Amino acid sequence: MDVYLDNAASTKVDDEVIKAMQPFFSDKFGNASSLHQYGNEAKEALEESRALIAKKLNAEPREIIFTSGGTESNNFALKGVAFANKDRGRHIITSKIEHDCVISSCKWLEKQGFTVTYLPVDKYGRVSPDDVAGAIRKDTIITSVMHANNEIGTIEPIEEIAKICREKNVYFHTDACQSLTKVPLDAKKFDLVTINSHKIHGPKGVGALYIKNGTKIDALMHGGGHEFNMRSGTENVAGIVGFAKAASQMKEEHINHMANLRDRMIDGVLNRISDVQLNGPRDKRLCNNANIAFHYIEGESIMTYLDMDGIAVSTGSACSSKSLEPSHVLLAIGLKHEIAHGSLRISFSKYNTKEEVNYTLDKLEESVKKLREISPLTR
Amino acid sequence: MDVYLDNAASTKVDDEVIKAMQPFFSDKFGNASSLHQYGNEAKEALEESRALIAKKLNAEPREIIFTSGGTESNNFALKGVAFANKDRGRHIITSKIEHDCVISSCKWLEKQGFTVTYLPVDKYGRVSPDDVAGAIRKDTIITSVMHANNEIGTIEPIEEIAKICREKNVYFHTDACQSLTKVPLDAKKFDLVTINSHKIHGPKGVGALYIKNGTKIDALMHGGGHEFNMRSGTENVAGIVGFAKAASQMKEEHINHMANLRDRMIDGVLNRISDVQLNGPRDKRLCNNANIAFHYIEGESIMTYLDMDGIAVSTGSACSSKSLEPSHVLLAIGLKHEIAHGSLRISFSKYNTKEEVNYTLDKLEESVKKLREISPLTR
Repeated sequence: MDVYLDNAASTKVDDEVIKAMQPFFSDKFGNASSLHQYGNEAKEALEESRALIAKKLNAEPREIIFTSGGTESNNFALKGVAFANKDRGRHIITSKIEHDCVISSCKWLEKQGFTVTYLPVDKYGRVSPDDVAGAIRKDTIITSVMHANNEIGTIEPIEEIAKICREKNVYFHTDACQSLTKVPLDAKKFDLVTINSHKIHGPKGVGALYIKNGTKIDALMHGGGHEFNMRSGTENVAGIVGFAKAASQMKEEHINHMANLRDRMIDGVLNRISDVQLNGPRDKRLCNNANIAFHYIEGESIMTYLDMDGIAVSTGSACSSKSLEPSHVLLAIGLKHEIAHGSLRISFSKYNTKEEVNYTLDKLEESVKKLREISPLTR
Repeated sequence: MDVYLDNAASTKVDDEVIKAMQPFFSDKFGNASSLHQYGNEAKEALEESRALIAKKLNAEPREIIFTSGGTESNNFALKGVAFANKDRGRHIITSKIEHDCVISSCKWLEKQGFTVTYLPVDKYGRVSPDDVAGAIRKDTIITSVMHANNEIGTIEPIEEIAKICREKNVYFHTDACQSLTKVPLDAKKFDLVTINSHKIHGPKGVGALYIKNGTKIDALMHGGGHEFNMRSGTENVAGIVGFAKAASQMKEEHINHMANLRDRMIDGVLNRISDVQLNGPRDKRLCNNANIAFHYIEGESIMTYLDMDGIAVSTGSACSSKSLEPSHVLLAIGLKHEIAHGSLRISFSKYNTKEEVNYTLDKLEESVKKLREISPLTR
């Protein structure tokens, strides 16, 4: 049995999405900036896709700027606002549990003369709106707090935080890569929103940044002036069409289905395996995320055992999977190093089934038992 | 008859390329950073593609950094070297006929405190190596001159220029988007080389930057540390596999075929239509580029007439096709505004045929005749 439970890392592209993309490789291969028929049909598909994505976020089409993915959108939002507003101020606020691309962009901006406040989170991974209010200074130009955490699934109180920022005239950006189509989001309440395609059964290499009209921001990629002068580079038409198709495929029933699988998995582990703990909250949690610490053993060893049984899970963010450091998210919620190292992320998609969860629970129980038998840490 | 002669703007994706990409959407959809089987097969495909592209350029695999395309690679090269070397110097050299994304990146860097010298070109669009030598200052950190011009097909003396730069300890970057697989290039002779996929029958949204080992450069996209810490963001595996496949499809015979079509087109126009002139050189010209000025009429009008006959050509770079300004390249080679406005770029691929060229010549002759009849500029 092949069971893919690493949907927070990437997802299978829907068949309907592949079908929608196909013509833009072989027939409608024009450059969307070209003025002939080939260009026109590419341009038309591009604008239809933009309208679809905009509708999904309750935004205007021209507030949607297509990019190469979540990492680009987050770099673009932070560096773009930083450089364009540096004369007004050079202070940025973010949290300790943001995705690597937000934190690394901030670290790089620190080298360019900006100052960054990294807010702590509570034991469930929640950023406190009061902390944001307290951190805002006269020279604060932007706050960036993610919509839902990619490792532990915590849904952040971004509407409250955005309101505080707006009152103090500070831009608010949220990384909604994990929550897109899973948690409602009304872009009008924010200044910048990052979304991407490959977490929602669309192709890799495509994303977007919502930029509210009037936001002062520099481009990250300069050139031919594509995307309303905000992101140059020939548009990846096939990818963008696929992204829009993927975004329009998600239904309410998929969310409920994933939440059921998530709860079955969490309850199954908590009931059947001793010395475990759920990382992240039980409520206000992403519908497709389970993250559990198994005491006395290594998450990577469990992962390897499960992989041999055909089950794909992860120990945290795929991006930092090769790092030997414990997850910065798990440390930020107060886990000790050894507990953080014993954690496993199990993430679902609409394609997963109850049978897959049952099979995984059996294999997980077996693997944990075997590993604990040989673990020097077991009591 | 549908005739696509705008291959400098974008190209049809090869069937073999589509076939090569397919599995990475539907089956092998893992994140290349994931440590399970799905991740491993994605990673393997990624590294095979990197090796293929590296071989094509005579580079080491780890000198190839995949990006979202030519624009990103050019932004990355210039801004990355500028920021990483700003303590050594803040002077940049480039030419007046570079692609918009090089020029716009330079303009943005000027706002960040860098100084840029934009070298002139001769009437064929050639940058003089002596001019480069003369422009190098103590604080020069990088020179960027394209391999082949995207509008008029001029092949630049980049080996000579690179040699001068290396002697003076200045990084040399070349944008090889138009020349890849068409003009031999030995990356070892340069420090940075931009290449992309959608000009060589690969998918849009994929490119690469060759970065010679030891080059001091900042990332443009920070994050999870993908691509040897040089370009973060989940790798577009399908796109990259397609890019590598496309790069390995081009054969010597294709180059000869395109050069024949180009010459047939240029000779046909020069012989059959009066008051025309070839833009760019006759020799040392890209095998697939023809660019011709038709006096007394507008290139855009010819384009529109041809489009109605099913023929796709362009008036210059697709990126700036919506601009009313005459091409900066045509102005730089000394054309008057009205001659520049009367220019047409006709660019070929391996799929074009002699019959298509003949048909286009007929339609071109007709269109030019009609337009000149109604042109107020005609003598």
